[in-house]
Amino acid sequence: MTLADLDTPSLILDRSVLDRNAAAMTGRAHALGVKLRPHLKTAKSADVAKIAVKDNFGGITVSTLKEAEYFAAAGFSDIVYAVSIVPAKLPRIASLLRSGVDLAVVTDRIDVARALGEKCVQLGVEVPVMIELDTGEHRSGLAPDSDEVVPLGALLHGSPGVSLRGVLTHAGHSYGCRSIEAVRDVAEQERAATVGAAQRLRAAGLPCPVVSVGSTPTAVHARNLEGVTELRCGVYMFGDVFQSEIHSCGRGDIAVSVLATVIGHREDLGCALIDAGALALSKDRSTGAEGLPEDVGFGLVTDADGRERIDGMRVNRVYQEHGLIGCDGAFPFHRLPIGTRVRVFPNHVCLTAAMYDAYQVIDGGDEVVATWPRINGW
Amino acid sequence: MTLADLDTPSLILDRSVLDRNAAAMTGRAHALGVKLRPHLKTAKSADVAKIAVKDNFGGITVSTLKEAEYFAAAGFSDIVYAVSIVPAKLPRIASLLRSGVDLAVVTDRIDVARALGEKCVQLGVEVPVMIELDTGEHRSGLAPDSDEVVPLGALLHGSPGVSLRGVLTHAGHSYGCRSIEAVRDVAEQERAATVGAAQRLRAAGLPCPVVSVGSTPTAVHARNLEGVTELRCGVYMFGDVFQSEIHSCGRGDIAVSVLATVIGHREDLGCALIDAGALALSKDRSTGAEGLPEDVGFGLVTDADGRERIDGMRVNRVYQEHGLIGCDGAFPFHRLPIGTRVRVFPNHVCLTAAMYDAYQVIDGGDEVVATWPRINGW
Repeated sequence: MTLADLDTPSLILDRSVLDRNAAAMTGRAHALGVKLRPHLKTAKSADVAKIAVKDNFGGITVSTLKEAEYFAAAGFSDIVYAVSIVPAKLPRIASLLRSGVDLAVVTDRIDVARALGEKCVQLGVEVPVMIELDTGEHRSGLAPDSDEVVPLGALLHGSPGVSLRGVLTHAGHSYGCRSIEAVRDVAEQERAATVGAAQRLRAAGLPCPVVSVGSTPTAVHARNLEGVTELRCGVYMFGDVFQSEIHSCGRGDIAVSVLATVIGHREDLGCALIDAGALALSKDRSTGAEGLPEDVGFGLVTDADGRERIDGMRVNRVYQEHGLIGCDGAFPFHRLPIGTRVRVFPNHVCLTAAMYDAYQVIDGGDEVVATWPRINGW
Repeated sequence: MTLADLDTPSLILDRSVLDRNAAAMTGRAHALGVKLRPHLKTAKSADVAKIAVKDNFGGITVSTLKEAEYFAAAGFSDIVYAVSIVPAKLPRIASLLRSGVDLAVVTDRIDVARALGEKCVQLGVEVPVMIELDTGEHRSGLAPDSDEVVPLGALLHGSPGVSLRGVLTHAGHSYGCRSIEAVRDVAEQERAATVGAAQRLRAAGLPCPVVSVGSTPTAVHARNLEGVTELRCGVYMFGDVFQSEIHSCGRGDIAVSVLATVIGHREDLGCALIDAGALALSKDRSTGAEGLPEDVGFGLVTDADGRERIDGMRVNRVYQEHGLIGCDGAFPFHRLPIGTRVRVFPNHVCLTAAMYDAYQVIDGGDEVVATWPRINGW
């Protein structure tokens, strides 16, 4: 079977690019002297996870309990669930712990830590907990220099039902950087603040075996990760056009794309329609207004082989099942007759991949060498 | 089982609101003297479809071949696939036609119509085709007064493998209207242009049994639909905050919402986090900049019972699995301790529902009376 045999839209994963991206980040983690704990929130596929953990220690990161359960069933036994835990979610976590999975959770709250311990005692399990730090993203986490870090650590260390695993942060604000130097500065801020919090815990006589940081831009560009023990990042496996715009990868490093068909021409409007719209591509748009080098719309359009961008073409607008493609100059209708297949390299691959239940896998060519299932939902 | 027993995030469908919305649109179609052919691209559920066709003729509209196959398997036998057809998609359509389903397709091109006929002859089927008209949306369709309408109709009427079913348009530009009067004007433009094209076909001696229009705003507000035979619309079943902003429904008419849990407080930033982010809500935002009465963000936040909006609260920002909720005044942390359940009424329900594989159905209260599967993909 080749790409020509697939229905459109289909989600295409080029394994040769994935292999290269995974090996590059693994090499980078080795060079930086940290363990790589890949984040599987983007891939949500055991087949991809096996490639991501190759030559690493086997630990992974997830963003939903469904991912934790799915990857545990696929044999992954060292998992961090990196979204603020609430006690009501403990029964599913307890089931995984009882099955032998080392599943760590994160919190930034003393009241939650106390409730976790009490509930875990009732459930007859002990859950390892990481203290989440906000090193600049302003999403979740304690300020690294907060007066609450040490008391929270002490509570987690001293209470039955919970244990203190370490500190964790996500420098998501690196996505707002518009230069590599700015990313490097965020990476250093992320590293220094997290290591500093770990040192305060240790100075108070508390254990802090794990110091975990991660975002794809900071993982790619960090000058050093001294004091950090593990790196969590995920988008690097696939890359996307936004990541290429902020210099986390090159345009040729994007492993995932959407195969689509030209279904309409608007000669009067100088654009064409493809059968990949808001559901096939998702609706996360980058714009030049954000200070990016180019308005990439909802994705860049290439020939069906994924190699050559067509005349600066991009997806300018999406309806539920229609995508409107255009370019800056005259639209090359002659090159794209109705029925032509194209590939769209998505702006934000985490959201695009989430619209599909499988990857159609190629290996640098146009032969479909495998179909890898992926999960969605919670 | 009640809402309190569900994991979060979950997709909640209030059947009592759906029933009311479906009955209202059915009554409106009867009053306007047209058949209602509900569009199932939003619901993607046979259970919902059965309610939508109640007291109607049973025909439905779909936006993907997977929907067509799914609804055909569920017993629906009169289907319009309302996205520009390309000949490569005919084998799946031929299978449905052979199974006895009346499946009509749409095109705006003479070359496609010719290729359709040739391929259908090879496949041994005849497909009914509707001519798509662009009555102002500027997506797909011929201009209603285009010189190509009659030749396209003649080709479809005169060629083996295809037949001329009628004309079809979608006044999607009604979503850009900011007053009911403006919607009414679009509805009249949609009606008049479509009926005019049908009259030109008939004047040329061609059959045009079906004159099909539809979008939720124009269906709700059209002054009259004289000359139209059928109405296709879909979002009206569920409603959403955007539709309420453009006066297609009231805030109390929104049948679908997302049940979520408060997982974090940011007292320092005056906001809180819920476990419903870009995947649980989708990423279609409405803003005041679009001339809407209110910036509704990614959705409005109510108490868990879905009845009372909390202090003007909305989802201001989404990360993959985190939603950041805020309000204009001081954030009521005391009212929303960690673990509190809330409901988010989505900005754009078509995209939000697409993130789930089932509806948790309630009937005006908090008891979960059913779980209705829904499909995604192509």
